[in-house]
Amino acid sequence: MENIKSYVQQNKDRFINELIELLKIPSISADSAYSQDVLNTADAIKESLLKAGCDKVEICETPGYPIVYGEKIIDTNLPTVLVYGHYDVQPADPINLWDSPPFEPVIKTTEKHPDGAIFARGACDDKGQMYMHVKALEYMTVNDKLPCNVKFMIEGEEEIGSSSLAWFVERNQEKLSNDVILISDTGMISNSQPSITTGLRGLSYVEVEVTGPNRDLHSGLYGGAVANPINILAKMIASLHDENNHITIPGFYDNVEELSLEERSEMAKAPFSLEAYKKALNIEDVYGEKGYTTNERNSIRPTLDVNGIWGGYTGEGAKTVIASKAYAKISMRLVPNQDNLNITELFTKHFESIAPKAVKVKVTPHHGGQGYVTPIDNIGYQAANKAYTESFGVPAIPQRSGGSIPIVALFEKELKSKTILMGFGLDSDAIHSPNEHFGIFNYLKGIETIPLFYKYFTEMSK
Amino acid sequence: MENIKSYVQQNKDRFINELIELLKIPSISADSAYSQDVLNTADAIKESLLKAGCDKVEICETPGYPIVYGEKIIDTNLPTVLVYGHYDVQPADPINLWDSPPFEPVIKTTEKHPDGAIFARGACDDKGQMYMHVKALEYMTVNDKLPCNVKFMIEGEEEIGSSSLAWFVERNQEKLSNDVILISDTGMISNSQPSITTGLRGLSYVEVEVTGPNRDLHSGLYGGAVANPINILAKMIASLHDENNHITIPGFYDNVEELSLEERSEMAKAPFSLEAYKKALNIEDVYGEKGYTTNERNSIRPTLDVNGIWGGYTGEGAKTVIASKAYAKISMRLVPNQDNLNITELFTKHFESIAPKAVKVKVTPHHGGQGYVTPIDNIGYQAANKAYTESFGVPAIPQRSGGSIPIVALFEKELKSKTILMGFGLDSDAIHSPNEHFGIFNYLKGIETIPLFYKYFTEMSK
Repeated sequence: MENIKSYVQQNKDRFINELIELLKIPSISADSAYSQDVLNTADAIKESLLKAGCDKVEICETPGYPIVYGEKIIDTNLPTVLVYGHYDVQPADPINLWDSPPFEPVIKTTEKHPDGAIFARGACDDKGQMYMHVKALEYMTVNDKLPCNVKFMIEGEEEIGSSSLAWFVERNQEKLSNDVILISDTGMISNSQPSITTGLRGLSYVEVEVTGPNRDLHSGLYGGAVANPINILAKMIASLHDENNHITIPGFYDNVEELSLEERSEMAKAPFSLEAYKKALNIEDVYGEKGYTTNERNSIRPTLDVNGIWGGYTGEGAKTVIASKAYAKISMRLVPNQDNLNITELFTKHFESIAPKAVKVKVTPHHGGQGYVTPIDNIGYQAANKAYTESFGVPAIPQRSGGSIPIVALFEKELKSKTILMGFGLDSDAIHSPNEHFGIFNYLKGIETIPLFYKYFTEMSK
Repeated sequence: MENIKSYVQQNKDRFINELIELLKIPSISADSAYSQDVLNTADAIKESLLKAGCDKVEICETPGYPIVYGEKIIDTNLPTVLVYGHYDVQPADPINLWDSPPFEPVIKTTEKHPDGAIFARGACDDKGQMYMHVKALEYMTVNDKLPCNVKFMIEGEEEIGSSSLAWFVERNQEKLSNDVILISDTGMISNSQPSITTGLRGLSYVEVEVTGPNRDLHSGLYGGAVANPINILAKMIASLHDENNHITIPGFYDNVEELSLEERSEMAKAPFSLEAYKKALNIEDVYGEKGYTTNERNSIRPTLDVNGIWGGYTGEGAKTVIASKAYAKISMRLVPNQDNLNITELFTKHFESIAPKAVKVKVTPHHGGQGYVTPIDNIGYQAANKAYTESFGVPAIPQRSGGSIPIVALFEKELKSKTILMGFGLDSDAIHSPNEHFGIFNYLKGIETIPLFYKYFTEMSK
């Protein structure tokens, strides 16, 4: 019986190569052109779970992409950990900004990753972080160290709203019954300072279409006389924030939880350099809601961002045209207590109400999810903290994340259990961006830390 | 010796087929992918001018696309008409909105064109209208009816700013010397009511780039904390008009010529139905500068329109990203006395000044041109009016157009002669739009009318 550190050392090259193979499959759930690749990735996950020691693995059909379910039940009297992850990835564009092809993984060292990092779409979000759990299971089964039951639920639609997962969870509460849910799909402060995400933002994502004239028009003959959908869309988007960058949608802030000054000063203790932040993004200044710090703006405050906009002539050269239509994709990050369906409704009502009579407006909801907060006094959190403390040598700091994992709120509602977000990525890993990567150190450290969580969670559950 | 009407009747099928062949060549000057097609079109124009009876035709090299020059000098004591036109066309996108491929011409009847119209990019703007002059020359030479000298100058960069034409004209004043310049690149009120364009708007066309963070970011982790270039661009664009739709660029209106109430009431006499206008565009309401009518807004008032906008994720589905950059193409239509270079400078200074510190802004001028007004008391205008009156049975109405033919101001400056804009297209011909077309009636009527202009202009010049 060897310990996890030495097992990882002996097998690390294989662990890295297995992940690289997984990263070669372009499982982009948002683009139907890649649907076969998404399905192939599900098969690959199934194989890896069987190899890692699951007794039973199924590819569960859903209205959308399948969910890979696996389990190893050693004793029904022992607690059960449900591991969640996703095998789909974000689209890779803009492709031209990648230094190497997004689905041809390469290992390069960076300032933050002197031991090297794997560069590929999905390296961190979430194939790399999900696969740590598969390898941790392998270690525990091979070395007879699995102290409790484990279930895996790996989905293929996280990047497009997890609607099939919701469908699946509602129908399989018995099968998915567990004592704690474990997810690695978030980040930590640094490789020397682990952190546990205790809060997530919710999400409301819509697409808007503004229609002016029934056809593209010559901007000379019609310019100035008809509503230009692009100008109107710009006006409408601009009006969604006031001069203090508060969002102007009536009712938007009604249920926003205001943190106490104590809580805010607790948060402010997390190490943060505004200068380093600006330097890393090459910006002269930050920008956001008046009255809040950068770390508050991206975690405890709701936001509204345009994620994409298009209309008219966008090719080479100049075309003097007034477009018939203009479009934008707009997402709102929500804080706990803001209901995403309600926010989507408020947005739609408001957006339609501010449209001038000279245009027609269509709002199409994409996907959304609720925010979430984990209390730090439950044994799941404490087991995770002990695991981090042992493998990193310092305790983890509880942190609110600005990101959204909509299904976490769903899990609590349907499965009545808490979710522990043990993230091993760094904010600088460029998830959702060109040149996404995941540190070799982080990947292996994750594999080392996870079995410790199982150990302490089982102990504390007695 | 036969008259023009019967000559057109006998040859109309050939006239139509020759134009259709010309329209099959995708001479899109704005897109370098089509450069060989643009050059091939120049060759085709050269052949057609030789066939039509020019003594000498040259393909004149320039820094850009060549200019086709042709001439027939019958007597240096007689006046000389310089015909200008362009053989390049606008890009065809959005391709998917065309009912038939833009470069596979088809003839269909429409409500406004019961005798049929040719549908193709460039059918009206300007291959169809330019080719009327070639066929009018053919009639005059074949039937020995050419009463004066004629020169042709057909360029290939009108849709991208005519910069090579300016270069060419400045260097060939002797070769291009003339008594009047004749252009068919505008429209008329209707097939029963001809009009002559006496005013054109100038143009300033710029492309703007707004850069926020140095890479695309995850909108959850950074949303609300950094300037989103798309939101900022929308804000900046929105701020370019005030609540009365006046343009807010300081100094923008300084040189705008204010028309007298008399002039405005003269203009107001042109037949116009706001209801029909709205119905034709399927809009609930018009939209524009407070205090001016629709026909004033698109002719005697300057405008600012976004012709294209893009940034972030515009593909299928949803991507929660904050883009690093956002772009827009913006054009300003100018009225006489507004200098386009000065306006471009004012725009650039203003746009840079309103950018928040959190983003970087780049403004790139595309092309531009001055506005122009033709007095209706010169013999060129009067000859054109007599020609219209004879071939349509009613006199032409003088009209200001909102469009821009930047080189008209250049011609007056460099060649010291007036330009007569004899347009035969209709506003409904969808130039610069999908399904551009040109009526068979208009095409043939143009060929009929042009020789009458030569006749009366020569008579009046005596």
